[in-house]
Amino acid sequence: MASGFCSLRPTLTSLFSFSLAPTLRWRSSSLRISRALSAATVPISSSSFTWDDVVEIGRAEYAPCNSDDLTGFLEKVDRCNRGSEKLAEFIPFVIEEQIVGYIHKGFTEYLRDFHDIFTFSQNASSPDCVDGHVTLNLMLEKPEDRTRAVADVIKILGDKGIIPGIRNELYPVKPSFNAPVYFSLERAAAPYFGLKGYGVHMNGYVERDGQKFLWIGKRSLSKSTYPGMLDHLVAGGLPHGISCGENLVKECEEEAGISKVIAHRAIPVGAVSYMDIDHYCFKRDVLFCYDLELPEDFVPKNQDGEVESFKLIRVAQVANVIRKTSFFKANCSLVIIDFLFRHGFIRPESSGYLDLYRSLRNGDCS
Amino acid sequence: MASGFCSLRPTLTSLFSFSLAPTLRWRSSSLRISRALSAATVPISSSSFTWDDVVEIGRAEYAPCNSDDLTGFLEKVDRCNRGSEKLAEFIPFVIEEQIVGYIHKGFTEYLRDFHDIFTFSQNASSPDCVDGHVTLNLMLEKPEDRTRAVADVIKILGDKGIIPGIRNELYPVKPSFNAPVYFSLERAAAPYFGLKGYGVHMNGYVERDGQKFLWIGKRSLSKSTYPGMLDHLVAGGLPHGISCGENLVKECEEEAGISKVIAHRAIPVGAVSYMDIDHYCFKRDVLFCYDLELPEDFVPKNQDGEVESFKLIRVAQVANVIRKTSFFKANCSLVIIDFLFRHGFIRPESSGYLDLYRSLRNGDCS
Repeated sequence: MASGFCSLRPTLTSLFSFSLAPTLRWRSSSLRISRALSAATVPISSSSFTWDDVVEIGRAEYAPCNSDDLTGFLEKVDRCNRGSEKLAEFIPFVIEEQIVGYIHKGFTEYLRDFHDIFTFSQNASSPDCVDGHVTLNLMLEKPEDRTRAVADVIKILGDKGIIPGIRNELYPVKPSFNAPVYFSLERAAAPYFGLKGYGVHMNGYVERDGQKFLWIGKRSLSKSTYPGMLDHLVAGGLPHGISCGENLVKECEEEAGISKVIAHRAIPVGAVSYMDIDHYCFKRDVLFCYDLELPEDFVPKNQDGEVESFKLIRVAQVANVIRKTSFFKANCSLVIIDFLFRHGFIRPESSGYLDLYRSLRNGDCS
Repeated sequence: MASGFCSLRPTLTSLFSFSLAPTLRWRSSSLRISRALSAATVPISSSSFTWDDVVEIGRAEYAPCNSDDLTGFLEKVDRCNRGSEKLAEFIPFVIEEQIVGYIHKGFTEYLRDFHDIFTFSQNASSPDCVDGHVTLNLMLEKPEDRTRAVADVIKILGDKGIIPGIRNELYPVKPSFNAPVYFSLERAAAPYFGLKGYGVHMNGYVERDGQKFLWIGKRSLSKSTYPGMLDHLVAGGLPHGISCGENLVKECEEEAGISKVIAHRAIPVGAVSYMDIDHYCFKRDVLFCYDLELPEDFVPKNQDGEVESFKLIRVAQVANVIRKTSFFKANCSLVIIDFLFRHGFIRPESSGYLDLYRSLRNGDCS
């Protein structure tokens, strides 16, 4: 299952939508949906939600033409796009005259000690860099030199606990998806440098008697990120040097025991994107979305121990769970809302249709 | 079939992609696709293209993973998004403190004669209005008063030939899709006021032996707009006071003889948007997209005389026709490229995937 960059153990109070304070939206034009109309009013008292809770909440009437019913979806998109008002606290991270990320001014203080590696410029010529920018020492010309030098810094910051959760997994640094890789950097450090992140997320669905069902996973309670939360059947970050399609087939096998023959039937259907600021962490993620129609008798089998269990749920019920709770790992909600749009579960007759649709690609989709 | 606001009879030289000069893209970030790699090299010598030409061009090998093959698609998107460099030649058209459109500074000269109807403001407080803005005389408070007053002006400009092609069809003036209507205005005048325009476009497809085919229409040669060009099975502008779904069902009947029972199976799948400046005309259109899977034995029958004929063509061949020619009415290309994305005919492995995907919603999608 896909992991977020920053460790996040959800608190119980954060799992229900009504506790989410509405945040400013990025690139937002006037919003037509009143956040006061939130549909999320389902009380749950258990200390941790179960599949029974999911089914119970999903069962509530879902009327796709109800003009108020997009509010709960928009809240979930907002949850992936926090902190736009803090954008001015970041300065660009520039390599070879391209912006590859953004670093919080507070975090740059930790980097200033390493002046043989990081260079701080104040007289920036670009309008994007009025507050200056951070770059690497020009002596570090080769990707492998940059990778080694920055790794030394991150090792020290990791040991001090300033960058927690070091994974010893390298992450490519590039300004956009098809651009060349300038160097590589420890994955846990990526959000501290505001790097672009890419992943693949797959909606695995079954059609039975004209109704569509989604296979939903529940993350293992032992996972360090988002334990116990709902997730896609298959999803994962995109490592360097592997294509989206190849990565998806690999993840299909590891996460759900889907054979190569079936996995190759998955259809790429577009992408969603978001930009999320949480203290020093700036996520700028693009998720490539896939649909896979599975045989009716297919049953997923997790191979890597990261999923507690799976359940097949009617799409209309999944829509209710997304609207009314925060049971889903936040970025999965975006990909499922995109599925709801493409499969006609959200219709233009709903007030705020275009606002919600546009918000699914709030981030820099490049 | 959907009609453009401005009359356009395509010239023969404009029908082939290689004659299209690449234009600047709106909201464009760095483009990864070299326009020099255009795949459009098919010579056609006939004075007007036929279905045989379409089939011949479609037949050429289409390899969705070829890294260069998105260039022809991107050119068609550019064709719908011309003139971004001329944005500064327009000033906002403001009603009740909301921007509802943009008017070319040259065109405003025709409006200055009517100072009891149009008001020109120079000391604008909004950063969007540094060059001032146009509004209606504050005495015109009621929608019906505004509609009547502006209609008088448009009648005069129509008689003088300044606004050609008057249709006597009213168009709602509003800042975004769900906003209230401030007044109504002759449809042919809409692009001169840079109003938002909305339409519904439907991809009618058939699945046979695991392959998808699209029903394509060829517009009647007697149509005033885009005569003889390729078009969707069903498409139309959205009149005031009718929902997208209702309008689609109506257009299905009129344009292709699709029964209500079948038309109701059409699935809304999202939207595309574009912004196009052509002299004084500024189109800001949002097209709601629909997919309808049709029975294998379905044959469309045009009822309103606006379609010369229909043909069922393999989707991969339609993709080739879009890449290599300008046979399609320009905005139909956008909706079909969106179909190609959602049905896996364009894949993330192609260089420029995200650039092309993003460009489908270049306009103000609100």
